[in-house]
Amino acid sequence: MSIYSELADIISSRIEKGYYSIGQRLPSLRLFSKENDVSLGTAQRAYTLLEEKGLIEPKSRSGYYVRKNTNISHCYKTVDFPQEPVEVPKWDDILDLTFPPPSSNLIQLGRGLPNIEVQTLKPLLTSLSRSWVKPDLSALYYDEIKGLYKLREQISRLLIDSETQVAPEEIIITPGCHAALSIAIRSICTTGDVVVTDSPCFHGILNSLQNIGAKVIEVSSSKNQGMSLEALELALEQWPVKAILVTPNCNNPLGYIMPEDKKKDLYLLARKFDVAIIEDDIYGDLAYKYPRPRTIKSYDIDGRVLLCSSFSKTLAPGLRVGWIVPGRYLEKASYNKYSSALFLSAAPQKAIVNFIEAGFYLTHVKRMRNLYARNLAVVKQWVELSFPEDVVISEPQGGYMLWIELPKKVSVTKLNEELINEGIQISTGRIFSVSDKYNNCIRINFGARLSPRIKNAIYRIGNSIKNQLL
Amino acid sequence: MSIYSELADIISSRIEKGYYSIGQRLPSLRLFSKENDVSLGTAQRAYTLLEEKGLIEPKSRSGYYVRKNTNISHCYKTVDFPQEPVEVPKWDDILDLTFPPPSSNLIQLGRGLPNIEVQTLKPLLTSLSRSWVKPDLSALYYDEIKGLYKLREQISRLLIDSETQVAPEEIIITPGCHAALSIAIRSICTTGDVVVTDSPCFHGILNSLQNIGAKVIEVSSSKNQGMSLEALELALEQWPVKAILVTPNCNNPLGYIMPEDKKKDLYLLARKFDVAIIEDDIYGDLAYKYPRPRTIKSYDIDGRVLLCSSFSKTLAPGLRVGWIVPGRYLEKASYNKYSSALFLSAAPQKAIVNFIEAGFYLTHVKRMRNLYARNLAVVKQWVELSFPEDVVISEPQGGYMLWIELPKKVSVTKLNEELINEGIQISTGRIFSVSDKYNNCIRINFGARLSPRIKNAIYRIGNSIKNQLL
Repeated sequence: MSIYSELADIISSRIEKGYYSIGQRLPSLRLFSKENDVSLGTAQRAYTLLEEKGLIEPKSRSGYYVRKNTNISHCYKTVDFPQEPVEVPKWDDILDLTFPPPSSNLIQLGRGLPNIEVQTLKPLLTSLSRSWVKPDLSALYYDEIKGLYKLREQISRLLIDSETQVAPEEIIITPGCHAALSIAIRSICTTGDVVVTDSPCFHGILNSLQNIGAKVIEVSSSKNQGMSLEALELALEQWPVKAILVTPNCNNPLGYIMPEDKKKDLYLLARKFDVAIIEDDIYGDLAYKYPRPRTIKSYDIDGRVLLCSSFSKTLAPGLRVGWIVPGRYLEKASYNKYSSALFLSAAPQKAIVNFIEAGFYLTHVKRMRNLYARNLAVVKQWVELSFPEDVVISEPQGGYMLWIELPKKVSVTKLNEELINEGIQISTGRIFSVSDKYNNCIRINFGARLSPRIKNAIYRIGNSIKNQLL
Repeated sequence: MSIYSELADIISSRIEKGYYSIGQRLPSLRLFSKENDVSLGTAQRAYTLLEEKGLIEPKSRSGYYVRKNTNISHCYKTVDFPQEPVEVPKWDDILDLTFPPPSSNLIQLGRGLPNIEVQTLKPLLTSLSRSWVKPDLSALYYDEIKGLYKLREQISRLLIDSETQVAPEEIIITPGCHAALSIAIRSICTTGDVVVTDSPCFHGILNSLQNIGAKVIEVSSSKNQGMSLEALELALEQWPVKAILVTPNCNNPLGYIMPEDKKKDLYLLARKFDVAIIEDDIYGDLAYKYPRPRTIKSYDIDGRVLLCSSFSKTLAPGLRVGWIVPGRYLEKASYNKYSSALFLSAAPQKAIVNFIEAGFYLTHVKRMRNLYARNLAVVKQWVELSFPEDVVISEPQGGYMLWIELPKKVSVTKLNEELINEGIQISTGRIFSVSDKYNNCIRINFGARLSPRIKNAIYRIGNSIKNQLL
C-alpha cells in the first residue's frame, strides 16, 4: 500500500469516527505533510484520493472540507459531538441549580463538600481560633500580594509528594482553586480565544471561560484514563488553541486518574503545538492509593503548565485558601490577582502553616483518603441496589464524586425538580458540558459522614428514576 | 445678543478652558441642537460663526473639530489634560510600588490601613475566635452565593444611616470593596468600552479597568467638591460612556465629600445620558461629621447605581468582607461573582453580624471617626512644619488619607526610592491617573496610632523633598 493511500485511510477513518465533522476544514496540505513527514506532493495525492472517493471537497483558497453529502454509516461513533470551538452558554439557572437557598433540612449531594467532622481536623480549628487573639493582630491586615511566604514554603514541600518541584517564590496563594483557575485563564486567554477542556468538565471552569468570552473545544474523556490524546491532537492541529484545561488526578466529575505516561504525552503534545496547560489538581491529594499520583506540572521543563489547587477539598472550603503555580506566567498571574482584588485573610493561612508544620496535614489526608474509599464502596452498593440496572456508574480512584449516566429516557430536569421538593440536592449533568452531552447524567457527592438519612436520599433518587421509566 | 452667538460663546469658552482640546470633535449638530433646545439651523449658525472666528473647522462627513492652529492664550487652563478616552497603562512596577516585601521595620504610610489596635474592636476578635469552635462548624463550608443572609440584613440596616434604602435581597457580599468594584465593572463594561472616572482615582479601580480593556476618561475633581459636573456633561455628550466611577464620600485620595445637591445632579446627568454609576463608598462611614453623608445610591430610583463598600476601612481589611448593591444589575453581578469564584468564608461574616447586632459597630465607628479627625490635625501640622512652603495639602472631610502636591521640580520617583531605602513606604501619585497628571503628588496614610516613629518618618519625607529643591 502506498504512503498516500495509507494517509488517506487515516483521514477517512477519522471522518468515520467523527473527529472531523461534516463541513469541517481539514488540516492544510502544508501542515498535513509536515506532521506526517511526507512531501507536499504525497499529501496532495492523499487528499486527491479522498476527493475522488467523495469524502472531501476543495474550496478555493481555503483548503479541503469534509463533504456535506458524505455517506458514512458510523458518523459520530467515537465522538458523538462536533469537535469544534463553541461559545460557552450563560446558564441563567446555574446559581439556583448549584446553590439552592440554604436550609437545615437540605441533603447536600450536589456541591463538592468534604467531611469536616473528623477528629484529625481539630488542631486546625484550635489554631484558627487562636489567630484572633492579641498580641499578633497581623491577621486583621492585608496579606502579601502573593500570599503568606511561610504558607508558600509549606505548599512547596507538600508538592514534592506529587514529584512537583517548585520554589515558594513560584507559588501564589489564591482564595480557593476556582479563583486560581480563573486567574490562570485570564493570564492566558482573552475574548474569542479557543481552549480545550475535558469532557465532562467542572462547571466552574466553563463559567470562568464564559466570563471572558473564550470558546471551548470539548475533548471527550474515557471513564478510566481521561482525555483522548488522539482527539486532543486533532483539535490542536485544526484550531489555534491557547490552552488545554485538564483535571488529570481524581477528575471532577469522573474520578479517574490519568496514567503517568499519558500525562507525559499530553505535556509533550502541548509543547509540540506550543500551548499552555492549566492543570486542576484540587482532588489530587485524595487519591485512594498512596503515594499519590504525579501532576502534569511535574513533567514541565519550560514553564507552560499552570498548576491550580487548594485546601478546600482536603481541609475545608470555608478557609478559602488555594494556590496557583503559574510557571512562566508568574508576573501575569500576580498582576491578575491584584486586578481582580483577590487579597486573602492572613488568619487561615497562618493556621494552615501551623497545621502542616506540626505534621497534622499528612495524618489528616491519610484519614480522609481511607474514609472516602470506604464511603465509595458503600454508596456504590446503595446505588446498585436502588437505581435501575442499566445506569452506568463511574469508577473513582480518588475524591468523593460519583458520576451516573441514566437511561436517555430519563429527564434529569424533572428528576431534579422532584428531588429539590423532597429536600435533596444533586448536580445535573447539563452544566458539565457546553454541548448538551450529559443531559442524562447526574453527579452525587459521597463526602459527608454516611447516615441512614443519606442512604434514604439515594434510594429516593433511585425510586424517582425508576418511576420515570415506568 | 442672538441665541446662536450666545451658543457660540459657550463653545468658545469651553475651548478656552480646555474642555474641548485641540483636534477634538465637537458634539454633532443634531445633538447640540437637541441639548440646547434650539433648531438645527441655529446650531448650524453657531458653528459657522465659530468657524469664521477660526476656532473650529468642518471635516467632510465627520463633523466639526477644534482647529489645530487655534490661537488661544489660556488653553488647558481649567482642564490641563485632554478629556478623551485613554487606554489604561499596565504598570509593571505597581506591585512593587504598592506592596513592598513585608518587613517589621517598614513604616507603612502607603496602603490604606486602618488602626486596628483600638479597644472597641475587641468584641469582634472574641467573636471571630469563637467561630471556629464546635458544634457550629458551618464556617468551614462554602457560604451562600450572595453571602450570609443575616449579614445582608445588618448591612441593609446600616445603610439607612446614609439614607440608602435597600433590602437584604439586593445586597451581595464580596471579599472586599475592590472585588465589589471589579464585579460592578464586569457587570457593565467589556473590552473597548468607555468609562468616566474621578481624577485622581484609586489605582485599584484603574487596574480593574485595565484588566478588562476598558478606556478611561478622567474628569478632574476639585479639591473640596469632587468631580466637575460641567466636564462630566461634556464627556457624556461627546463619548459613548458606559459608566461613571465615583467616590463621592471621603474620596480616596482627596478626602472631599461631594455636596448633596451635586450628588443628585450627578445622578440626574447619568439618567439623562442613560449611563450607570459605580459608587465607591468604602470610607463613607468615616466622615468626621455625623450624621454621615448620603450616597448617590440614595437618590437612585431606577436602579442604575451600583454601590460598593466594605468593612476593610471601618473594621479591618483582614476580614475580607465587602458588599455590592448592584441595583438593576443584580443578576449579572451574582453571576460575575460566581464566575470569578469569589466565595467567602462564613466565619468573619458571622462575627460581623454579632458585632453589629450587639451595637458595637456604631460605637466603634464613632471612636474611629474622632480618632482619625484628631490624627488629621496632628499630621497636617507635622507636614506644614517639615515640608517646603509651596506644597498643596488636601482637606479631608473623612477617612485617613492625605494628598500632597509637591513642587513640579521634585521627582517623586527619586523621593520614593530614597524613602524605601530608609524603610518608609508612601503612595506615589503616578498610579492615580492614566495621564501622568499627578507625577508630582504623593499620598500618605494617617490611620495608624501616631507615634514619634511616624512623626520622624514624616519629617524625613519633608527633608528629602527639601533636599531635592536645594
